[in-house]
Amino acid sequence: MRLYPDLGLKVFQAPSIGVALEALKEGFRKGELTIIIGRLSVDYHGRARSKLGFGERVVILKPDGALLVHRPHGHSPVNWQPPGSIFDFKRLGEKIVINAGRSNPLEKVTLTFDRIDLLVSSRLRDDAEFSLYVDEHDIRDALVSEPELFEEGFHVVTKEKRVPSGFVDLIGVDREGRFTVIEIKKGLAGRDSVIQLKRYIDGLKGEGGAAVRGVILASGLARGCQGLLDSLGLEFKRVDPRRCYEALMKRRGGGLQLELSRWFISS
Amino acid sequence: MRLYPDLGLKVFQAPSIGVALEALKEGFRKGELTIIIGRLSVDYHGRARSKLGFGERVVILKPDGALLVHRPHGHSPVNWQPPGSIFDFKRLGEKIVINAGRSNPLEKVTLTFDRIDLLVSSRLRDDAEFSLYVDEHDIRDALVSEPELFEEGFHVVTKEKRVPSGFVDLIGVDREGRFTVIEIKKGLAGRDSVIQLKRYIDGLKGEGGAAVRGVILASGLARGCQGLLDSLGLEFKRVDPRRCYEALMKRRGGGLQLELSRWFISS
Repeated sequence: MRLYPDLGLKVFQAPSIGVALEALKEGFRKGELTIIIGRLSVDYHGRARSKLGFGERVVILKPDGALLVHRPHGHSPVNWQPPGSIFDFKRLGEKIVINAGRSNPLEKVTLTFDRIDLLVSSRLRDDAEFSLYVDEHDIRDALVSEPELFEEGFHVVTKEKRVPSGFVDLIGVDREGRFTVIEIKKGLAGRDSVIQLKRYIDGLKGEGGAAVRGVILASGLARGCQGLLDSLGLEFKRVDPRRCYEALMKRRGGGLQLELSRWFISS
Repeated sequence: MRLYPDLGLKVFQAPSIGVALEALKEGFRKGELTIIIGRLSVDYHGRARSKLGFGERVVILKPDGALLVHRPHGHSPVNWQPPGSIFDFKRLGEKIVINAGRSNPLEKVTLTFDRIDLLVSSRLRDDAEFSLYVDEHDIRDALVSEPELFEEGFHVVTKEKRVPSGFVDLIGVDREGRFTVIEIKKGLAGRDSVIQLKRYIDGLKGEGGAAVRGVILASGLARGCQGLLDSLGLEFKRVDPRRCYEALMKRRGGGLQLELSRWFISS
């Protein structure tokens, strides 16, 4: 065992079962994050079941009860538990078993190690702020990707549509079948935005004739604009930049990337 | 540097900048997985932007180009790149900078380390099969959670509804407003399931009178049943157990768990 003074980092290479168990228990007791490189199998029982045979993987146990099991490829963990899981560590013959479970919902991940090559334990300090920035294009792309961020039942028809007075950010159809024109503003939407939206709608009405719904989507509405909106029969909706960011991030990697060999429907 | 014979594990504690850079480059060249514990900041530019100040974190670089940055809490990485990212490693004064980027979409994560406490590099072998098992309740719960797994525009009204002849698995309304009764079978659906579904529908018709759509959802339909289905005006749909599993897993942790301090809408 080696101690690195800055971080209280403990490093165990090829620890015996006794040493590994003690390190796991102590790490968790002390609120440390633990990383294991080793050979293990993974069983999940809860909502559905899954099984993964033995292989060399990276396991992260966080002090809040989060658990991650990573194979050597892909960005998604092959199995994980959210914060709040209860860990238990035990010896089973020549193996080490880690259970991570919750009671609500009732579920359990069981890791069975037949070899631990490295066990690292450390208390990490991280209070930094996470800041995100989305611009009008990001918001628009997020809505294209997840139209329900605008409202349930909404469908995008086109983005950046040219109309006589400029470019409409987004055009779609709402759940009641109404043609809907959305003007996106990054900050507070003011009189200019309202008047611009009105012009877009007038331009589109020329094309069809049916009623068109107009919505300003922004982080807020400038003072005194609500009356103008009302008088023109337009609406304001607040955008949630965090959900937009999440939608954009989610779209990048194509979901969970389960690399699945076999599946079963079982009783 | 210490070598553990089984795994070709290389462990560097508090490496100098030169040693760390060389280890990073060599690890990637050799198709190894690298784990870093250190103090770093994270900047993301691409779809939207994000910034995370300095803090102690765990970074995983996989040989396929996947990158994960984990804070000491939560099960979601605070930032990540999918497989296919190009890494580059460089020195910037007394710091080490790792860029992980892609050209389509154009995006880049920049990790700036002012301290590396541990760097571990290893070639991991993992060819195990991942098997999953879902039962009828799992499929039903997945549909409740993500009704679009059944079909777009579908809404669940109730599950396990009691009718004179038993319990209907799932009742909903489809995008055309039709009352829809779904019978879920774990394996092949046979004549029994078809007749059972027909009875359920007849039982429900007694309640309302409007047309009811009946669908068998299973991994397959037994031979000779298609004719019976057709003659009764019922449908068969194939269930995708993998997507059901993904829906159940996704629901567990409540999404990306961004622990967000501030957000910005920027130009």
